[in-house]
Amino acid sequence: MESIMIYVPIALALLGLIYMLVKQSWVMKQDAGDGKMKEISDHIYEGALAFLNAEYKLLTIFVVIVSVLLAIVSFVVPTTHWLIVIAFICGAAFSAFAGNIGMKIATKTNVRTTQAARTSLPKALGISFGGGTVMGLGVAGLAVLGLTAFFIFFFHFFMGGVWTNTMDMTIVLETLAGFSLGAESIALFARVGGGIYTKAADVGADLVGKVEAGIPEDDPRNPATIADNVGDNVGDVAGMGADLFGSYVATVLAAMVLGNYVIKDMGGSIADGFGGIGPILLPMSIAGVGIIISIIGTMLVKIKNNDAKESQVMGALNIGNWTSIVLVAVACFGLCVWMLPETMQMEFFGEGLQEISSMRVFYATLVGLVVGAVISSVTEYYTGLGKKPILKIVQQSSTGAGTNIIAGLATGMISTFPSVLLFAGAIWASYAFAGFYGVALAASAMMATTAMQLAIDAFGPISDNAGGIAEMSEQEPIVRERTDILDSVGNTTAATGKGFAIASAALTSLALFAAYVTFTGIDGINIFKAPVLAMLFVGGMVPVVFSALAMNAVGKAAMEMVQEVRRQFRDIPGIMEGTGKPEYDKCVAISTEASLKQMLLPGVLTIGFPLVIAFVPLAFGMNNLAIAEMLGGYMAGVTVSGVLWAIFQNNAGGAWDNAKKSFEAGVMINGEMTYKGSDAHKAAVTGDTVGDPFKDTSGPSMNILIKLTCLIGLVIAPILGGHSDEGETAFAKAEISKEIRVEMNATDDNQATAVVTTVTTKNGESTTDEKVITGTTEEVEAQVNAMKNVEVKVEKN
Amino acid sequence: MESIMIYVPIALALLGLIYMLVKQSWVMKQDAGDGKMKEISDHIYEGALAFLNAEYKLLTIFVVIVSVLLAIVSFVVPTTHWLIVIAFICGAAFSAFAGNIGMKIATKTNVRTTQAARTSLPKALGISFGGGTVMGLGVAGLAVLGLTAFFIFFFHFFMGGVWTNTMDMTIVLETLAGFSLGAESIALFARVGGGIYTKAADVGADLVGKVEAGIPEDDPRNPATIADNVGDNVGDVAGMGADLFGSYVATVLAAMVLGNYVIKDMGGSIADGFGGIGPILLPMSIAGVGIIISIIGTMLVKIKNNDAKESQVMGALNIGNWTSIVLVAVACFGLCVWMLPETMQMEFFGEGLQEISSMRVFYATLVGLVVGAVISSVTEYYTGLGKKPILKIVQQSSTGAGTNIIAGLATGMISTFPSVLLFAGAIWASYAFAGFYGVALAASAMMATTAMQLAIDAFGPISDNAGGIAEMSEQEPIVRERTDILDSVGNTTAATGKGFAIASAALTSLALFAAYVTFTGIDGINIFKAPVLAMLFVGGMVPVVFSALAMNAVGKAAMEMVQEVRRQFRDIPGIMEGTGKPEYDKCVAISTEASLKQMLLPGVLTIGFPLVIAFVPLAFGMNNLAIAEMLGGYMAGVTVSGVLWAIFQNNAGGAWDNAKKSFEAGVMINGEMTYKGSDAHKAAVTGDTVGDPFKDTSGPSMNILIKLTCLIGLVIAPILGGHSDEGETAFAKAEISKEIRVEMNATDDNQATAVVTTVTTKNGESTTDEKVITGTTEEVEAQVNAMKNVEVKVEKN
Repeated sequence: MESIMIYVPIALALLGLIYMLVKQSWVMKQDAGDGKMKEISDHIYEGALAFLNAEYKLLTIFVVIVSVLLAIVSFVVPTTHWLIVIAFICGAAFSAFAGNIGMKIATKTNVRTTQAARTSLPKALGISFGGGTVMGLGVAGLAVLGLTAFFIFFFHFFMGGVWTNTMDMTIVLETLAGFSLGAESIALFARVGGGIYTKAADVGADLVGKVEAGIPEDDPRNPATIADNVGDNVGDVAGMGADLFGSYVATVLAAMVLGNYVIKDMGGSIADGFGGIGPILLPMSIAGVGIIISIIGTMLVKIKNNDAKESQVMGALNIGNWTSIVLVAVACFGLCVWMLPETMQMEFFGEGLQEISSMRVFYATLVGLVVGAVISSVTEYYTGLGKKPILKIVQQSSTGAGTNIIAGLATGMISTFPSVLLFAGAIWASYAFAGFYGVALAASAMMATTAMQLAIDAFGPISDNAGGIAEMSEQEPIVRERTDILDSVGNTTAATGKGFAIASAALTSLALFAAYVTFTGIDGINIFKAPVLAMLFVGGMVPVVFSALAMNAVGKAAMEMVQEVRRQFRDIPGIMEGTGKPEYDKCVAISTEASLKQMLLPGVLTIGFPLVIAFVPLAFGMNNLAIAEMLGGYMAGVTVSGVLWAIFQNNAGGAWDNAKKSFEAGVMINGEMTYKGSDAHKAAVTGDTVGDPFKDTSGPSMNILIKLTCLIGLVIAPILGGHSDEGETAFAKAEISKEIRVEMNATDDNQATAVVTTVTTKNGESTTDEKVITGTTEEVEAQVNAMKNVEVKVEKN
Repeated sequence: MESIMIYVPIALALLGLIYMLVKQSWVMKQDAGDGKMKEISDHIYEGALAFLNAEYKLLTIFVVIVSVLLAIVSFVVPTTHWLIVIAFICGAAFSAFAGNIGMKIATKTNVRTTQAARTSLPKALGISFGGGTVMGLGVAGLAVLGLTAFFIFFFHFFMGGVWTNTMDMTIVLETLAGFSLGAESIALFARVGGGIYTKAADVGADLVGKVEAGIPEDDPRNPATIADNVGDNVGDVAGMGADLFGSYVATVLAAMVLGNYVIKDMGGSIADGFGGIGPILLPMSIAGVGIIISIIGTMLVKIKNNDAKESQVMGALNIGNWTSIVLVAVACFGLCVWMLPETMQMEFFGEGLQEISSMRVFYATLVGLVVGAVISSVTEYYTGLGKKPILKIVQQSSTGAGTNIIAGLATGMISTFPSVLLFAGAIWASYAFAGFYGVALAASAMMATTAMQLAIDAFGPISDNAGGIAEMSEQEPIVRERTDILDSVGNTTAATGKGFAIASAALTSLALFAAYVTFTGIDGINIFKAPVLAMLFVGGMVPVVFSALAMNAVGKAAMEMVQEVRRQFRDIPGIMEGTGKPEYDKCVAISTEASLKQMLLPGVLTIGFPLVIAFVPLAFGMNNLAIAEMLGGYMAGVTVSGVLWAIFQNNAGGAWDNAKKSFEAGVMINGEMTYKGSDAHKAAVTGDTVGDPFKDTSGPSMNILIKLTCLIGLVIAPILGGHSDEGETAFAKAEISKEIRVEMNATDDNQATAVVTTVTTKNGESTTDEKVITGTTEEVEAQVNAMKNVEVKVEKN
């Protein structure tokens, strides 16, 4: 019997999207200012659209290629259904559409925020955060809508809408993985391409504008200034949105896969009020309820005082954020108790089946919520203005750029300590509570507030843009002061948001990793097998090389931008006097093309490696399960190393940035107040130059790398998996029995004898094999156990 | 029957040590110059001794503490014998003694090289390389002598000098692990402490001398200049020596452990002409023969032409190096064929027993030799003067320190690509040839030329020192020119030597890792178990944090040095005019104390983490084998991440260094020749400042971190291991049999039924347990296999 509950998440997602439309029309109705403001805003909007259009073109080619590959796979491999192609295309389309909504609203909200800031800070916050809310709900709503709609469709298509067995559900979820793969592919373009875009434009604008021509930041005479502002939207809005869209979908998917395995461990079916699929519906339900909770959270974000300072704005955001986290905890309690059997059996590797209560699953979700909250604090500590690590970098700036760089690198490196211990603790605890299902649900609970997190995140770059527009349109200082308050809070939320994004990527990858093992049917990933260990090494290397490629990409793209800006300064008469008009669109075009071109190599690395590891040995006839284990080792290597490099790069970059910013208000070095323009400040600027690609390009790209790697593994899994060769071939009637008898005697001189008899009976014919083993007790035990571990496998006629 | 072959390695080691004494007395007989030269040389000698003495004091405390801990363990745990304490102390003493020999000869050879360089370049090479040879043979000779002597002693003590069974041999080798642990502990002090010392002195001398006072490098007026020259010996001679001493011993030990397991896989005993321990003796024999081959190799290193250039000197070194590598290959062929059974059985995880011929073991040793050669070329490519990556960093220096730093970081990061693929390929290939025994023998073969490698390595800092003495004692320019040729070659060999050291550490760790698994008796390390995965994360983090601590340590120690140099410039009258005498010893004392103090935290991190992971869960009553698997996950994490960070940091540091040096001869940037003193050069100097601790402190420390982690694991292994609770407790007569009968039926609708009957009989009493499982074929199979995998374990009464 089908439960109505299967339709609830979709209804909640639609509710979220309706609220988004209401909020969107409210934002759009706000005064968009006039004259120069509007003109600049339009430039940014058009630049953003130009990037999106170029990205979509490239994306279309990419989606077509991958679709053809997936289609081939689905025709060759019986267990992979061709519907995975449709799911993949729709996953890509949904994510792209969510990004589109976000970019458009962000580029429309910025000028409205500037206009509002002319009169009122609370209003400016309301509008900028309203834009963020639209973005957040767009992402979360579309993610849940798409995933649940496809699940319902596949559930009916493959299973007729009723529970049959875990095998059929596996096919449903394997096909659904296409949606997740599509979503994450977009994230590759948006996050990596966007990351290169934003830094290429930023560095290019600064190098020629600030350094060579000596004009201030955001000066309208600088041809790259529009590209720079577009970059904020491309990288921080669309990139972050696609990243979290991907995490959100992948997390829920992985939890559903593991929910299916809970049912398997319980004997293949359960009787509950949800059509027997409660454990599978639970993560979807948490996601759906999370959308509503996020709406409530966003409603709480407001200030009243027009003279509010950063702390009050931050406080308003915190109230919304914490309320939503607490509400998610409450909701998880209710949903876990309501939707799960009171006790479940779960298979723990090496420990056998264990009884797990639904309360323990709830505890696992609490672990996820704690991780989300704590990682933000850790990030804040290592990158926040006025914190000890930042003050240390500031001190080290007095002895030059070299020591500033060393201090920044060391800060990023040391910040991996609490972060990794936190993740390791979370893996351990959530697993101890409820196995890998617990790990996946911890991730799901953390991601439930995605809409709220994105609203807080997106409001930052919107305010940053609003400040840029105020500067370019030469508003009164009070306007810039107000947007600066919002921008400053936005910088903090940007850092903590990055922490949240890493945590989400890490937990998502773990959940995918767990789902992978169950999909392939391997009994674990044993790194004591040399090929697996070799792949662990290779996997560990990939994030390092990927980061280097991303950093180099920024350098190359920035150089192209520098050439173009120099050319315009040289060729356009009157540009410096403000009479000649810079060709903004040319700079936008260069950033767009360069970033998309430069992301190809890291993209190929990300997608190519798992494919090579899977298919080259397959072509050489290597055992499927051995390949699956190798690929698992590779995935683990990428995840461990990727998480480390993400934390290292994000926090080092954030720390350098704020060390530089510290000089704006003045810092005390060796008893002397030191300000902008000092040698120490110049050293700090050098540090920030290094940190820029770290924190905005290579660091955040790690999230995509690790998730996409695990997702590709998951999609390849059925090809390698144990059940792939059964497929549609009919089983002949076969009666097979295998009997292994071990008799073992040990004496007190540590010697033992064992007689191992193996009788194999197949359709009435028996073969007997006897072996006698003698030696020390330990040796005999080892040999007997090695022999006993024989796979019982039904053979086909 | 005992074979004479067991005494051959010890004889070869003694032969090597005798040749060392001959060479040493030859070097000491050379003219040591006079007056100022001698005075400066004496200062360096005394400074080096001061460091050694301070180090020994701290070491003694450390050795006492660890000895007490080991003694406690040996009394509590039955399988750990108290002789491990003696082995540990002697391992530490041998390594310290080898370091002592090396430091003394290096600081005596430097001035003799300067003196020789006044008349003849060939003679200067002969003397400096002669000093290196003494160092190399001291390390290799003492390593083989100590290890083999203890092996013979324990073999007689525990087994009466004849083969009994693999269990007894395991106890021999477990006790022998103490020697290796002792050696590696010294390496921690010498490599990490030495690395901090050398950079603190270098940075301190430069910051005040070159930058503040404007006097040239190696100027005798600079109070830190002696400390700086001592540092070259402390870091590059003693540090490198202790590092390779540790690798050498650990590799041979691990190969012996795995050789014992080959015998175990072959049924517990073999009949060969070597008392049944051919596979265990082989790695020792390769090491012994390697010493003689190294002597032959060093004899080939000579030039005739007094006007020789770098390429000719390099050529002479290459001839010696390549000859010794080829000879080792030939020796490995002979030894493998002679000492091993023609075919062996080896257990491959997941694949069961396989027949392995002795030729395949030889192929595995070839893999090791290839890795040693190729990694040097890779390192040379990424860090060599005039190579593409260096030229790119030079180009990027033109746009400032920021872009220089990014380019250097990216170069180091990308260099992990070929290096890791090489290691991964080596693991795979040597394992495919001959299992983990093959991996360990690959490492042993590579390490066989350790004496030659160290001679090449140590000759660099000796020549560097010789140049410094020429400068300080104001010799004619031709002297410095000649020592500069040697120094320049020495810089290249230093870079490739670091590559060799990483490769040796990586392969050693893998071999130890393999030995660990066999010691504990776990059936692999399954990272799909969440606690194991969590520890993999934690292990991955430790090298990153360790590196940061080491970098910060350099900064702190350098600051103390800066204060002292400033004080002397201020307080000592006439110091700048050359009339006042700087207090060199105070600077030496500061470097010494600061470096040893600062290495404590990273040292505690290295030693503490594995202990916490092992003993905290043990205290909470966690299952031994589960802990062993977790610790294995931690070891794998440290190894993978440590190798990556070692390559990254060493190569980035080397690349920055040579990018800076490129400016000395002038480089072409944007069509213009650019020299020292240009802005681009200043940017490159900043890069080198960052690179210094990378390549000389934190990078090389990774070797110690990963080896020591794996060694501590190996020493803890018996405590966690499967056979630890048997110990000396007598077995009661127990007759236990366990019979597992599986009958499985499958029908063509993909449904199956299995009846699993388990009959356990213990001293006549039987208990029967029957379970019926139904479901889809796949589910039944999975459940049956999970049940069947029951450990047969003899229980004690």
